[in-house]
Amino acid sequence: MTAWDTASAWMGTLADLDGAAAVLEWDRETIMPRGAAETRGAQLATLAGLRHRTLLDPSLSDAIAQLGASDDPVRAACARHATTERERASRVPEDLVRALTEVSSRSVAIWGEARPSGDVAAFIAGIRPLVALTREHAVCLADGGDPYDALIDLYEPGTTYADLAPVLDDLADRISPLVDRLAGAGGPPLPAAHWDEATQMVVGTRLAEDIGFDLQRGLVGRTAHPVTMGLGGGDTRLSTRVDPADPLSSIMAVMHEGGHALYEQGIPEVWRRTLVADAPSLGAHESQSRFWENHVGRSAAFWDRMAPVLHAAFPDAASHLGASDYLRALNQVQRGPIRVESDEVTYDLHIVLRTRLERAMVLGDLEVGDLPEAFDAGLVELLGISPTSPAEGAMQDIHWAAGIMGYFPTYTLGNLYAAALAETVEREVGPINIVVRDEGFGPILTFLRERIHRHGRTLTTSELMRRATGAELSADPFLRHLARTYDPTDN
Amino acid sequence: MTAWDTASAWMGTLADLDGAAAVLEWDRETIMPRGAAETRGAQLATLAGLRHRTLLDPSLSDAIAQLGASDDPVRAACARHATTERERASRVPEDLVRALTEVSSRSVAIWGEARPSGDVAAFIAGIRPLVALTREHAVCLADGGDPYDALIDLYEPGTTYADLAPVLDDLADRISPLVDRLAGAGGPPLPAAHWDEATQMVVGTRLAEDIGFDLQRGLVGRTAHPVTMGLGGGDTRLSTRVDPADPLSSIMAVMHEGGHALYEQGIPEVWRRTLVADAPSLGAHESQSRFWENHVGRSAAFWDRMAPVLHAAFPDAASHLGASDYLRALNQVQRGPIRVESDEVTYDLHIVLRTRLERAMVLGDLEVGDLPEAFDAGLVELLGISPTSPAEGAMQDIHWAAGIMGYFPTYTLGNLYAAALAETVEREVGPINIVVRDEGFGPILTFLRERIHRHGRTLTTSELMRRATGAELSADPFLRHLARTYDPTDN
Repeated sequence: MTAWDTASAWMGTLADLDGAAAVLEWDRETIMPRGAAETRGAQLATLAGLRHRTLLDPSLSDAIAQLGASDDPVRAACARHATTERERASRVPEDLVRALTEVSSRSVAIWGEARPSGDVAAFIAGIRPLVALTREHAVCLADGGDPYDALIDLYEPGTTYADLAPVLDDLADRISPLVDRLAGAGGPPLPAAHWDEATQMVVGTRLAEDIGFDLQRGLVGRTAHPVTMGLGGGDTRLSTRVDPADPLSSIMAVMHEGGHALYEQGIPEVWRRTLVADAPSLGAHESQSRFWENHVGRSAAFWDRMAPVLHAAFPDAASHLGASDYLRALNQVQRGPIRVESDEVTYDLHIVLRTRLERAMVLGDLEVGDLPEAFDAGLVELLGISPTSPAEGAMQDIHWAAGIMGYFPTYTLGNLYAAALAETVEREVGPINIVVRDEGFGPILTFLRERIHRHGRTLTTSELMRRATGAELSADPFLRHLARTYDPTDN
Repeated sequence: MTAWDTASAWMGTLADLDGAAAVLEWDRETIMPRGAAETRGAQLATLAGLRHRTLLDPSLSDAIAQLGASDDPVRAACARHATTERERASRVPEDLVRALTEVSSRSVAIWGEARPSGDVAAFIAGIRPLVALTREHAVCLADGGDPYDALIDLYEPGTTYADLAPVLDDLADRISPLVDRLAGAGGPPLPAAHWDEATQMVVGTRLAEDIGFDLQRGLVGRTAHPVTMGLGGGDTRLSTRVDPADPLSSIMAVMHEGGHALYEQGIPEVWRRTLVADAPSLGAHESQSRFWENHVGRSAAFWDRMAPVLHAAFPDAASHLGASDYLRALNQVQRGPIRVESDEVTYDLHIVLRTRLERAMVLGDLEVGDLPEAFDAGLVELLGISPTSPAEGAMQDIHWAAGIMGYFPTYTLGNLYAAALAETVEREVGPINIVVRDEGFGPILTFLRERIHRHGRTLTTSELMRRATGAELSADPFLRHLARTYDPTDN
């Protein structure tokens, strides 16, 4: 066997284990019966342990070294990722990998039970052992360096807190006065009505197809928390939430997850089951979801298309509503406690808060038991509001309950990259409102396929974005976008 | 670690890999997009390869040997199964395990495409490489013995074709005259009507609950071909088919799969993730599905319960139908080409045919290309009919397309064991018709839990059935049941 054959078989095994785990997770989020929670945690832990062992297989060293010297950029990129992942894994004992997976499953289950009733004590008891394991994991990965940086590096390779902090602080400083000025702008919300749930699923699925999602190679499902998963080549799934009182929630979830899903489907099929069949980082991935959600999904042209669709699908509820009603309801700026319900202006303040708190937890500066209070205090400081119930505070997101720390800042990176891509589209393809009105979503997808999707993980995120937009990471395009959209007086 | 701890961790890994594969299969049968077929095959092959390697882990030998000497019958049974499975696996190269899984996925996909149009040439081309691999597998397993016996042993441990042949021949000889006499008896079918599909799923799910299926530890789904899967402890799933023209199809599928599912849920939870958390054989498993399907689901008392349920759920379609209409439609005896649509009298003739043909294929006495013709000739010989289309012949079942050979005879064993259990219930609990009428399904489930389910795989099938019924395997109870039900003149 050549070095490439050897490495391909090995990468294939890793991809198969990742894909199998994704199927187990999709199933868990959609239909798994309650009684299976513990077994499912054990199954995922076993797959994680086997993946870890496969990743570290010492017999691969030669083949990877040979590929590293290859002239073929794809093979060289595979070797680079293989080396990074093996180095990273070599610092973490297999027992810890298994324990993280198993304890995380348990903690997520506890969170799921505790959240509806706002049982913050149960939530804290559930995440305490997981936070301890996550800290241990971070310390192993950091190998003497900064533990929080080591976690960020899992999701946004090459980025440190020192890179992020000035960007986040700058954003917070510049968004806060915007919020002060704009709070209450937009609206009103849609009038109260019943939007049939099954019909919402049909509308959402058609919308996903309309923006370019291929239902032969994926599907649209329903979950409590929208998500996109790649279950291996040829199988990308996105889910939406459905609220019978509010059609916007599902439509925006489809646009957001649809952005992720189009990225997954746009990675070349020939790279299936290799280490480049992925995005270079979660920030890059989030650039796609935010692009479709915020730069397309909040455009007037988008709602000019959607209004008649909704009118036909919901003749009663939508009978008196036009594009501008949806758009105004969607673009209402308000100080709210819930991240996933927040508007585009206040969103990143939620991320700033979470990033500071999770870093403090990982570094041991914040005890888990003090998290709820610190969270509420941070909401007051950054957003000027107090949560009215514990479910609106520290326990609102799944991330910490799942042991995912270092991930939140990638949402803000996604917002910044999306805005830079949107300016590039406006410059090179045309104004999004006019393109969508005259030509639909095709030209936008073509641009993203070409500039982002087709590169998979052959470039770093900074290289990818620099080539795509011609610029370095900056908050400016995003702030220009907010000012243009929400504060026309500022133009 | 004690020997038991070591063995438990190892059995846990095997169970997790089995459970994960079952989740992947359930997903494939229910919602997987078309484009994922190839990747899913690779994922299942990777899991099968890792399971094979784990099974053969040489470091387990000592622990297994120690358990084998244990006084604890559960631990000793685990050691027995571990030894058998390791010996079996040691005869099969890992490459062949992976290839069987991968080629089987491909062949099933081809079958799925070819069957609706009756493209028998595509079907044959699809199964040809798989039959070759299955034969190779059988030869490895047989280790110089009879290859078909080696395959039977996978599904019905300890049973050989020499054991089965006289039973099957005897059945064929005694059923044929019954068919001659009864063909056309029963009926008519239900009048043409529309039975809403979603409502059928609701009715089917409630029926599963009614017979004792625990929806906290499982679910009821919908597939083209009904199936029951254990996805690890706390997660048993059964599926039903739904035909909008015929409610009986789904109800009988729920009763059949429900029987399997109750068995799975009745195996003690404390044995979760060990080698005894299973049935001792597929014949034992099928005894449960056949019991609920044929001895409960075809009883007058069952339809006295169901008729008002259907009347309430389908006020139009069921408006003029009573218990006896359903029962007569169900118990119509007719010579038909399709196994899964056949009645209780002719069913086993289909099994006799398949057993003879698959044995000939495995032994090399029948070339795959000659299968369709041999199948049709066998239908004429045994059932006196010719299929009117290729889809009604050799390609009607999924088994051969999935590389499953040696499995079919377990269906007949299930029929025979079910009849023996039914006679025991009538003797010890009471007449099924009266028990169901007066006390519902509870006393029957209690009997089966006690005599069958709670033993898991701690006994062999013959021991289990001998203890449960007090008798050895025989066709007599089944033939008495047929005579009593279908041929009252014979009583």
